Amino acid sequence: MKIVRTRSSADDITYGGVEPEGIRLYRGTPFVAWEPTEVVVPFEETQLLSPTIPTKVVAIGRNYAAHAAERDAVVPDEPIIFIKPSTSVIGPAATVRIPPHSRRVEHEAELAIVIGRVARNVPVEDAAGYVLGYTVGQDITARDLQHRDGQWTRGKGFDTFCPLGPAIETEFDPQEGQRIVCRVNDEVRQDGVVSDMVFGPAELIAFVTGVMTLLPGDVILTGTPEGIGPLQDGDLLETEVEGLGLLRNPVSE
Amino acid sequence: MKIVRTRSSADDITYGGVEPEGIRLYRGTPFVAWEPTEVVVPFEETQLLSPTIPTKVVAIGRNYAAHAAERDAVVPDEPIIFIKPSTSVIGPAATVRIPPHSRRVEHEAELAIVIGRVARNVPVEDAAGYVLGYTVGQDITARDLQHRDGQWTRGKGFDTFCPLGPAIETEFDPQEGQRIVCRVNDEVRQDGVVSDMVFGPAELIAFVTGVMTLLPGDVILTGTPEGIGPLQDGDLLETEVEGLGLLRNPVSE
Repeated sequence: MKIVRTRSSADDITYGGVEPEGIRLYRGTPFVAWEPTEVVVPFEETQLLSPTIPTKVVAIGRNYAAHAAERDAVVPDEPIIFIKPSTSVIGPAATVRIPPHSRRVEHEAELAIVIGRVARNVPVEDAAGYVLGYTVGQDITARDLQHRDGQWTRGKGFDTFCPLGPAIETEFDPQEGQRIVCRVNDEVRQDGVVSDMVFGPAELIAFVTGVMTLLPGDVILTGTPEGIGPLQDGDLLETEVEGLGLLRNPVSE
Repeated sequence: MKIVRTRSSADDITYGGVEPEGIRLYRGTPFVAWEPTEVVVPFEETQLLSPTIPTKVVAIGRNYAAHAAERDAVVPDEPIIFIKPSTSVIGPAATVRIPPHSRRVEHEAELAIVIGRVARNVPVEDAAGYVLGYTVGQDITARDLQHRDGQWTRGKGFDTFCPLGPAIETEFDPQEGQRIVCRVNDEVRQDGVVSDMVFGPAELIAFVTGVMTLLPGDVILTGTPEGIGPLQDGDLLETEVEGLGLLRNPVSE
């Protein structure tokens, strides 16, 4: 199933499920209790929002060997984690804003895990049971500020720096080696395979929940493959994971 | 006024105001709209909780020169920020848990700013208008993991690593040079003055909100004075800021 969050009129925001003829609206949320309504809204009459509102996005550094190499960094023995705040999250078609602070803002296409229930000290073998599904994400990064600060929080924490969407796919198996692609103005910048991760989704869930509790709707961004590059005013950023759909965001100053 | 969050029966959690004879319960929250009720609960019949539930805690590194020196670090030209997740927050009397991951967990007493309304790109001169009040905080840190990772998120992000409380004082002026003291089992470990900060509260609010939007209830932890030291199973951690009261937390494995 593909789960979306959608606005179908000015103040009517609900979760929905993607069907051939449109989006079926649901009562409730997929995290607690929800049930389908009789209403199916045609695609052109809805606006897709970020499919989840996480309390936090826990992101992973250097989780593809080829990307670590392009940054002259080694693959760590354990995952390196950092947090992108909820205020950085935007949905499909929303604009990534380049802040005046930075002279080098870059894309990082990522597979995003959406957590389905309260998760604390989850063993690797149980991790799949805590996943609601997967979506497409970006870990937009002000590379110059990341380097200047040493700590990554500022460079990766600006408002609009975490596009997510278009939908949460509940049937996705990341071990199947799906392609993850990032295009800027139709030019392919990143073209990787999600099974090339150093630490896979189950290991990441176990590692992160051994440190901090994850809440329903929280997101783990699983790291980016090689090919990161700059974004500029007027660019169109497209991020796609096979089986999860296309996340398209304009870029503006 | 001193604002608290309190549980006065099993599922009855409300905001309240401290009065001489007990805690007056309020309807609503101090962030949107609230009004006093007729109910005043004696102190001994209530349990104080963290006085705010932040969506994020933005913390500042090396913001007292003497603390930067004790860590062989320089005072930065701009604030260094990192995020402690909402899941790290605990209230007065709640237990700080030492995780099995770390062999060196340390206290860092801090003055905490509680944000009162949505704050984005706030000028220094307007910053005070975005503050609901101040409370006492701790930036508990697994020092060995902080060093090993380079990034500070894991070492500072464990559940229970952000005690806050006991109350939000709305009349506190941090320019008055109040003392900030941390005691472990009655031994004074840290004894500083909040006006020794490198970047003061107004500058921090301007800096952080130039990067990310702060939401009502969000917290800025303003850095720690010198004297950080280890915590062990069985310790009693006391953190006090003149005018803000005493935050007391047991420590356990």
